[in-house]
Amino acid sequence: MSDAIGIKEIEAAAERLAGHARRTPLLSSPLLDEIAGRRVFVKAECLQHTGSFKFRGAWSAISNLPKKTRGVIAFSSGNHAQGVALAAQRHGLPAVIVMPQDAPQLKLANTAALGAEVVLYVRGKENRDEIGERLAEERGLTLIRPFDDPDVIAGQGTAGLEIAEQMAGEDVGALDVISCCGGGGLTSGIALALADRRPDWSVRTAEPENFDDVARSLETGEVQENPREDGSICDAIVTPRPGKLTFPILKRLCGPGLVATDEECLQAMAIAFLRLKIVLEPGGAAALAAALFRKDQIEGESVVVVASGGNVDPGLFASALQQYGR
Amino acid sequence: MSDAIGIKEIEAAAERLAGHARRTPLLSSPLLDEIAGRRVFVKAECLQHTGSFKFRGAWSAISNLPKKTRGVIAFSSGNHAQGVALAAQRHGLPAVIVMPQDAPQLKLANTAALGAEVVLYVRGKENRDEIGERLAEERGLTLIRPFDDPDVIAGQGTAGLEIAEQMAGEDVGALDVISCCGGGGLTSGIALALADRRPDWSVRTAEPENFDDVARSLETGEVQENPREDGSICDAIVTPRPGKLTFPILKRLCGPGLVATDEECLQAMAIAFLRLKIVLEPGGAAALAAALFRKDQIEGESVVVVASGGNVDPGLFASALQQYGR
Repeated sequence: MSDAIGIKEIEAAAERLAGHARRTPLLSSPLLDEIAGRRVFVKAECLQHTGSFKFRGAWSAISNLPKKTRGVIAFSSGNHAQGVALAAQRHGLPAVIVMPQDAPQLKLANTAALGAEVVLYVRGKENRDEIGERLAEERGLTLIRPFDDPDVIAGQGTAGLEIAEQMAGEDVGALDVISCCGGGGLTSGIALALADRRPDWSVRTAEPENFDDVARSLETGEVQENPREDGSICDAIVTPRPGKLTFPILKRLCGPGLVATDEECLQAMAIAFLRLKIVLEPGGAAALAAALFRKDQIEGESVVVVASGGNVDPGLFASALQQYGR
Repeated sequence: MSDAIGIKEIEAAAERLAGHARRTPLLSSPLLDEIAGRRVFVKAECLQHTGSFKFRGAWSAISNLPKKTRGVIAFSSGNHAQGVALAAQRHGLPAVIVMPQDAPQLKLANTAALGAEVVLYVRGKENRDEIGERLAEERGLTLIRPFDDPDVIAGQGTAGLEIAEQMAGEDVGALDVISCCGGGGLTSGIALALADRRPDWSVRTAEPENFDDVARSLETGEVQENPREDGSICDAIVTPRPGKLTFPILKRLCGPGLVATDEECLQAMAIAFLRLKIVLEPGGAAALAAALFRKDQIEGESVVVVASGGNVDPGLFASALQQYGR
């Protein structure tokens, strides 16, 4: 494993993922285009195995481990957890997942149902990295980091390869690719893939308002932190700061960061329900929300939006429909 | 146009649909398999343009019309309506759609939003066929029937070709393909396609309890009617009787019909939300409901379920989640 990540590593990850990860569809609707005021293509990663793009990076990393590996460990609020749990199970490896005790019920339950051992910690009080590293050492487990790992970034980048292929036949003019962004694994992977395949496109991040560490880091050119980690419904993409490996890539390849409020994410979830028939979680809807509600900050004639995940508790989804489903 | 429909007509429809209809994904989840007690593959036709398989048949029929066609007309509770509206719009043809006044709001609104002129009638009191035929004659429009049309059946059959291709790599043993069934256009098209591609598979219909005209017709070998047309939440697949063209095909090629209650359809919608991240309407969830809750009536080691549509009003979807989303 080296820190170098480029198109060759992403193509190698795509070969390892072939037949295991799902090639998710690129969806569209004339009624969605009308709201956005431009053509919108939605890369539906909520339809990936385990309900989010995280399965790509998990499979990429686990399929590249040495044969003597005894098991894996991961820390995650839920999507990376499920991705690692399923990828480990299919490789016949035990998995321990360290999760915040306030993670959505659905994510906790699914991670356990996929055969992983779930260890809970209190967000903001306990350091999940320390817990993960201690358990890894005690049990001889290999830590699968959620974004600061070249194999994980390369795995997420396979979504970018697919976008380039799936858009090949479309005559769409200047294009922005907007990706929901937490630690930056997905966005940096996609940016690397598209820097090779479509250097004419612009890659943009989307984050929750008040948890926009990447947008502020991109603006200032230096890593900025979020003042807190709790208080957003976009749990999937709230991280303390951009990753050490990912930020230099984002800084080199991405345009200015976009932001969406929690309310805008809920509204985007309702619109995706009505127009595309897919289920998005708030954090997975941030890029679509930016495309729909921050139109004046987007230059492309068309956008590809990465809808990164759909693991949302039913009560929250029902309330999004009740507020915005019309 | 002739009444003969076979694999050549379906293959020709597939050529006309290429690049216009979406090749919908075949989804699965280990957590879904666990509930069903066998492997389950879900052909997600809710992700088809306009949110249901109906776009296939509409495109197939409209793309095969003579050049002098002045416009089209259709009667539909909503999914055929939207399919015809969009296919006509993209062919530059005006469309008139005759819809029951109690059709789901979402379907009425979307049909109009796709540029069609919507004409309402009262279900059970007025005869939609007569209204449609009168308007067709008055305005010189070509009637696009929802299922009793060879081009429509051939178009729906393209879903069957895709299922055969998408399952090609899977080692699944004996297999039942279960399709939601109203007038029988989708099921007969799929049955014809699979009779050519996979004659070893069994094709089954799924209908709402108390509206199981096809199951009873298959059982008795003669066309049976439903005593009434209202009173089911599965509006998309409630028809008075099997079609004239479709029933002989169903009788020749399909196994015994399956049935699911409204409650089972709602539960299947919640499970599809949780496990697959797709939105199904009640009628579009009937086949999944049969796979999950009528296990002992299925013989295959695996099933392919056709999830035929996702055009459901938000309030009904939210109530399915509140009742069954856990």
